[in-house]
Amino acid sequence: MIVVPSEVPHRDFYRILIGAVGPRPIAWVSSIDRNGQPNLAPFSFFNAITSKPPLLGFSPGLRKIEDTSHAKDTLSNIRETREFVINVVTFGLAEQMNLTSGEYGHEINEFELAKLTPVPSERVKPPRVAESPVNFECKLERIIDFGTEWPSSSLVIGEIVCIHLNDSVLKDGHFDGNALDLIGRMGGNQYSRTTQRFEMERPKVAHR
Amino acid sequence: MIVVPSEVPHRDFYRILIGAVGPRPIAWVSSIDRNGQPNLAPFSFFNAITSKPPLLGFSPGLRKIEDTSHAKDTLSNIRETREFVINVVTFGLAEQMNLTSGEYGHEINEFELAKLTPVPSERVKPPRVAESPVNFECKLERIIDFGTEWPSSSLVIGEIVCIHLNDSVLKDGHFDGNALDLIGRMGGNQYSRTTQRFEMERPKVAHR
Repeated sequence: MIVVPSEVPHRDFYRILIGAVGPRPIAWVSSIDRNGQPNLAPFSFFNAITSKPPLLGFSPGLRKIEDTSHAKDTLSNIRETREFVINVVTFGLAEQMNLTSGEYGHEINEFELAKLTPVPSERVKPPRVAESPVNFECKLERIIDFGTEWPSSSLVIGEIVCIHLNDSVLKDGHFDGNALDLIGRMGGNQYSRTTQRFEMERPKVAHR
Repeated sequence: MIVVPSEVPHRDFYRILIGAVGPRPIAWVSSIDRNGQPNLAPFSFFNAITSKPPLLGFSPGLRKIEDTSHAKDTLSNIRETREFVINVVTFGLAEQMNLTSGEYGHEINEFELAKLTPVPSERVKPPRVAESPVNFECKLERIIDFGTEWPSSSLVIGEIVCIHLNDSVLKDGHFDGNALDLIGRMGGNQYSRTTQRFEMERPKVAHR
């Protein structure tokens, strides 16, 4: 079957997009507005972009309230303060992460709502999530806006200025990725665990 | 433990980055150069960016040959022809995908190398991978270069102009994401299957 995005209802295209591009890593983004009001929300259009400079990118979509499009708190906070923290999401944090995915009013502090502990960051103002074993403190590199109306999104690119690694993911003083119990986002309401792993070694090729 | 990217060797930072940002979806990108020579290679700094316009983004890193940095074939092909296809990677295609990840010379056709079937696309010139159940035909939207020296990367953003869905992922004429046996990229040489799934419903919030 052939599907041309511009020729089908958006929701049909979106179902294919989120079902076929996966598993997606989850950026659990903490930010604050200019008055210091915190926000925490998950985004799965997220990945590393490059390791030098050390950049992460995620795309907060616009939200629609009574037929008008609004920036989500995360995006407007980052426009205001140009800093944020990306916290990773483990299986043990799944329920709390999901709680923070609701479209709450700006006055709601999702740390309180989900009973999570905000702790001060080292180099940026937004707090990080103590319960998350890896936190990437980021300074805004750029925002690219792809539209002003729902269901469009903006791409937020941040430079990692500091990483916190919890003791639980250290082994002999080094980061141990195998200790992370990450989850990924799939289509619909689905998530995938990452405990069913396998290894493949990249082919070695002699350069001519 | 606190890690500041600029203060540690790049390989240490990179290990943390690919171990903590995961599971990453895999873009298996087919492209051709201006003479029609095909290329196929996997990239895991990849995700959807926005659904309207329908954009996918992935970041091919530079490669280093005898101490000088070069664009990978995928990137130089896309600069030349401004089109590409992103094919999804299932567990059944893992070995063949891995074969195409070697840093082969430009003259190597990875379709032949990995015994994959190139079939003509509908709206772009690069062929798609017949064995992959979902193919996204893309036209280049933009390339953002973040550096000119290894280990830097460029972000390639493509607009999806056409999607092919194999019969195996259709149910009653609709896309069935559950029929896809996607794999995700993890740290080191690891991959994760996505068969261990669970569901969480997003909280419903009344807008004030």
